[in-house]
Amino acid sequence: MLDFSPFYAQLATNKLHQWLQTLPAQLATWSKEALHGDFKQWQKTISNLPATTPSAIQLKNAVQFGAADDISSGEAQQIRYLLQQLKPWRKGPFNIHGIDIDTEWRSDFKWQRALPHITALTNRTVLDVGCGSGYHLWRMRGEGAEFVVGIDPSQLFYAQFQAIKHFNPDPAVNLIPIGIDDMPALKQFDTVFSMGVLYHRRSPLDFLQQLKNQLRPGGELILETLVVEGDENTVLVPGERYAKMRNVWFIPSVAALTHWLQRLGFNNVRLADLNCTGLDEQRQTDWMENESLIDFLDATDHSKTIEGYPAPLRAVIIANN
Amino acid sequence: MLDFSPFYAQLATNKLHQWLQTLPAQLATWSKEALHGDFKQWQKTISNLPATTPSAIQLKNAVQFGAADDISSGEAQQIRYLLQQLKPWRKGPFNIHGIDIDTEWRSDFKWQRALPHITALTNRTVLDVGCGSGYHLWRMRGEGAEFVVGIDPSQLFYAQFQAIKHFNPDPAVNLIPIGIDDMPALKQFDTVFSMGVLYHRRSPLDFLQQLKNQLRPGGELILETLVVEGDENTVLVPGERYAKMRNVWFIPSVAALTHWLQRLGFNNVRLADLNCTGLDEQRQTDWMENESLIDFLDATDHSKTIEGYPAPLRAVIIANN
Amino acid sequence: MLDFSPFYAQLATNKLHQWLQTLPAQLATWSKEALHGDFKQWQKTISNLPATTPSAIQLKNAVQFGAADDISSGEAQQIRYLLQQLKPWRKGPFNIHGIDIDTEWRSDFKWQRALPHITALTNRTVLDVGCGSGYHLWRMRGEGAEFVVGIDPSQLFYAQFQAIKHFNPDPAVNLIPIGIDDMPALKQFDTVFSMGVLYHRRSPLDFLQQLKNQLRPGGELILETLVVEGDENTVLVPGERYAKMRNVWFIPSVAALTHWLQRLGFNNVRLADLNCTGLDEQRQTDWMENESLIDFLDATDHSKTIEGYPAPLRAVIIANN
Amino acid sequence: MLDFSPFYAQLATNKLHQWLQTLPAQLATWSKEALHGDFKQWQKTISNLPATTPSAIQLKNAVQFGAADDISSGEAQQIRYLLQQLKPWRKGPFNIHGIDIDTEWRSDFKWQRALPHITALTNRTVLDVGCGSGYHLWRMRGEGAEFVVGIDPSQLFYAQFQAIKHFNPDPAVNLIPIGIDDMPALKQFDTVFSMGVLYHRRSPLDFLQQLKNQLRPGGELILETLVVEGDENTVLVPGERYAKMRNVWFIPSVAALTHWLQRLGFNNVRLADLNCTGLDEQRQTDWMENESLIDFLDATDHSKTIEGYPAPLRAVIIANN
Repeated sequence: MLDFSPFYAQLATNKLHQWLQTLPAQLATWSKEALHGDFKQWQKTISNLPATTPSAIQLKNAVQFGAADDISSGEAQQIRYLLQQLKPWRKGPFNIHGIDIDTEWRSDFKWQRALPHITALTNRTVLDVGCGSGYHLWRMRGEGAEFVVGIDPSQLFYAQFQAIKHFNPDPAVNLIPIGIDDMPALKQFDTVFSMGVLYHRRSPLDFLQQLKNQLRPGGELILETLVVEGDENTVLVPGERYAKMRNVWFIPSVAALTHWLQRLGFNNVRLADLNCTGLDEQRQTDWMENESLIDFLDATDHSKTIEGYPAPLRAVIIANN
Repeated sequence: MLDFSPFYAQLATNKLHQWLQTLPAQLATWSKEALHGDFKQWQKTISNLPATTPSAIQLKNAVQFGAADDISSGEAQQIRYLLQQLKPWRKGPFNIHGIDIDTEWRSDFKWQRALPHITALTNRTVLDVGCGSGYHLWRMRGEGAEFVVGIDPSQLFYAQFQAIKHFNPDPAVNLIPIGIDDMPALKQFDTVFSMGVLYHRRSPLDFLQQLKNQLRPGGELILETLVVEGDENTVLVPGERYAKMRNVWFIPSVAALTHWLQRLGFNNVRLADLNCTGLDEQRQTDWMENESLIDFLDATDHSKTIEGYPAPLRAVIIANN
Repeated sequence: MLDFSPFYAQLATNKLHQWLQTLPAQLATWSKEALHGDFKQWQKTISNLPATTPSAIQLKNAVQFGAADDISSGEAQQIRYLLQQLKPWRKGPFNIHGIDIDTEWRSDFKWQRALPHITALTNRTVLDVGCGSGYHLWRMRGEGAEFVVGIDPSQLFYAQFQAIKHFNPDPAVNLIPIGIDDMPALKQFDTVFSMGVLYHRRSPLDFLQQLKNQLRPGGELILETLVVEGDENTVLVPGERYAKMRNVWFIPSVAALTHWLQRLGFNNVRLADLNCTGLDEQRQTDWMENESLIDFLDATDHSKTIEGYPAPLRAVIIANN
Repeated sequence: MLDFSPFYAQLATNKLHQWLQTLPAQLATWSKEALHGDFKQWQKTISNLPATTPSAIQLKNAVQFGAADDISSGEAQQIRYLLQQLKPWRKGPFNIHGIDIDTEWRSDFKWQRALPHITALTNRTVLDVGCGSGYHLWRMRGEGAEFVVGIDPSQLFYAQFQAIKHFNPDPAVNLIPIGIDDMPALKQFDTVFSMGVLYHRRSPLDFLQQLKNQLRPGGELILETLVVEGDENTVLVPGERYAKMRNVWFIPSVAALTHWLQRLGFNNVRLADLNCTGLDEQRQTDWMENESLIDFLDATDHSKTIEGYPAPLRAVIIANN
């Protein structure tokens, strides 16, 4: 049985305490009823990870816990083996005692593009909606955030996060396995990130409102999502699939998305970055052996997806509550 | 206390019986907690309407219950007076014993445009989502529908419907004062109408899915909504107001809307009618004394709203589940 | 999937309509989640019962549907076989086309003792709390009750009731498979019976209050339960077992029970009958092959249970709301 | 708005953490919907209490916080005045900086009778069900309990507790304003007290089971309640009033109560004390100016209540889970 009590103890003593009115009941139900068939196996895998003492924790330019020298080669082999049980690894990379978890995504690229534009995270309480296995949570902490919460309903991502946190059990970095629909309107976070989620939502405006509901007055939203070229009235709703993904709904232009945010009452909405996802940023690796971006694009014209839509173009938009 | 028992008795004996699992509880709560401040007064007004015996019921070309000759001039005066207490009357017109309720909207125009395109309603079970005071419910019944249910959360619309039904208490014509969000997925209606609602929804795709969830396999959707000119990727999200209305969200092109319906699995999606709302269709009357369309348009250019958007253009789209 | 719609249709048109606020939702949940492992088999058994045309319906002195002559010997054999699949049969007896279901209990004895003391049931709406397989429901109907509802959470009792009702599908006689805890305070029944239940309740006063909550003002309660000799302060709470039953809690004296009823606001509380259960009233039969009363009594002294408590003494107490 | 976060922080870090699944939601609802009309005024009174520095905290032989010398005479006057706003004070006495809150009850008498018989409270987690204003909570803490929780739904008692705790804000002593029905079965407390509650419950066995549900295996129950003389089958259920109290239900003999506890699975049930409540233990004072015991007894025969029942006789019974 998973024990979220240490997280609750922190909530009870910080400005998120209102969350205690709903979260423990939800997670208790989740623990009892909703667990993935492989979840127990993943927990066993994690419990088998050896206790180590990392010689250094690097969060500023990478997520790197300990060095190869800190552990024996047997331990290294064991750790590598166990972490491989949690494949596919999509978001990273992580380096654990010299073991390089080479994930499908170079999430550090995305972070590097966004970081120069955001308000310094020092002492801030931060939420990351759709945080995956939590790569960016560590980078946020590396930038001085006081308390970092990521949410993502994927249980494999949660298990991967647990495995990583095992080597650096920082109580200020947390992943809670729920979706934004499960959160009450806390209106307390200083910064809310949501990267790579909006286009998966059937109701983009409700989603943006939910993000707004988590921010304190004046708080900052960093929104990263797929966009298309076009004016304020341009929105692509792909057919059944976009880049082989089934659940893609609204891909607006930057102008349209900017307008939506303003319509919902966000201020100071600005485009921070616009980037066409490169084949070096999303690709197959030893840790993610399924298809990746190269397979999702038109083989003869990388400016188009295999379905003929514009290839992935991603914007980082920043706004204030 | 409102008594919906006669409606429940019908549900229990027709194919909508699953609705009994939620509706009575919802309406009991609604009766206790959610009533509008004027609701009691409206109920009193309705209870004062005299009992009459309409010499004829006309539903085919108009909604006309009884003739002037059926009642005394004192009764006519009383009825007119009481019905005027329920102003503003927006959807109609109704003729009650010769009293012409000249509503803001000539809802009969909309009906005339849609009717030639829809599958005959004979013996069908029909839902009208956002039915207003229920004008079209009577017209549907006039076309032979076996059982007609309208839903609209507005309590004034409900009171107006009660007042009209007082003069023709047909158990097959019903208005239930709830919204589509309150309905379980019944998947039983032969025909679902929704006219003039989609653009008021912050999540148009969720709304279309909700409509789909009410239809039996093969059932027919008649959707009427605001549209703009443009291609499949064109969607207008107005600013704070459109034609002075605050709560307008998505106005897609016909092509975009058609695509959305297909994406959700509707078949045989086709445009039945496209019409620029005329000043004779929506206007101030003795029964609706507030501003109307003329006040919402640019005074010097009726092709634009007062905010500069395209003036209301309405499409009727038909599709099958 | 069980369909209670015909019952709901009746509720919607009689004075119990408030029950629609909770019952359909409860029974839907029950159908989905709470069914006994053998329930499907029982339903199949019932669906195999042949359609017959009973030449006569006898409810006044017995529960007897049809005669042996109405059916072929093959049908008789089939019916007997199928009904035997629903053993053990505890409450009865029933006679179905000459087939005598000789139940453990001669429930007709109990009925004969109570009947002379109760207000005539003609045109009354009647509830029987803990009705077993419904023997008394038929007798109540036989006395002219307009609408009879029995409740009992046992699913085998429910199946037995279905089997019996198959041969006389009287819509005025109903068994709903719930407990009294599941009922809202309807305050509408003219007569409420509860026979053989009180001593199974850990909170007798709450149970008596629940019975009161079902009665209209002035309505009549017929309560049958185990009692002991003694004064107003005498209450037997047996040890782990009483007459081998595990779930027996409070066995008051008649004086104590009378006082409890008065304390809760019942009027005109009177003892109608006091009877020591005889070995001819509760015994093993071909239709109930387990242990019965003879096995529950002290072999050498039938005035005591096998545990040494006073042997079953049953009172019928009548009171008004 | 009341903030229970410090209590939640403690729950999250001790063995009661399961309570977080329900308590915060309940108290949030309570804060919003259920507050007594005078509650705001009481909170204002409490917020006006001056900050003081008690020279000593006495919990062992009395509840005494600070001495008269610690504060000015003006402060003393102010404190006395404010505490008097929270009358009537029923359970105590408390001494706050020399101000003697002379409560209706000498709750210390009851404590003195029970204390010699209970397992030492050192390092135990303790629950007091129906704790009133919390007098015994302080005495439990004085005996070394590690964490003390009292529950009582009375909001005046809660306010009185807040006022007392103001002068000794010990985080290990807590009153939560709920009833036992609101608690999940925590099965974690080492010791559960319930003094003066059982006879107010319409279902004594359910109440005893609820107490059991709070105890860890082997944990200790200290139950104090009204009893009558008599054998195992003797239970007094008074009429509408007992000693002028309206809500008195079951007053068993010690033998009957002992048997009930055994029936529910308690072990080692023993009578620790039997005491006829004296006029020096419950009486009118300056802090409780309403009627008290003397007014509840037969004026000419103090062995009887004014209704003719046996005068209050109280037993302390101890049992193990």
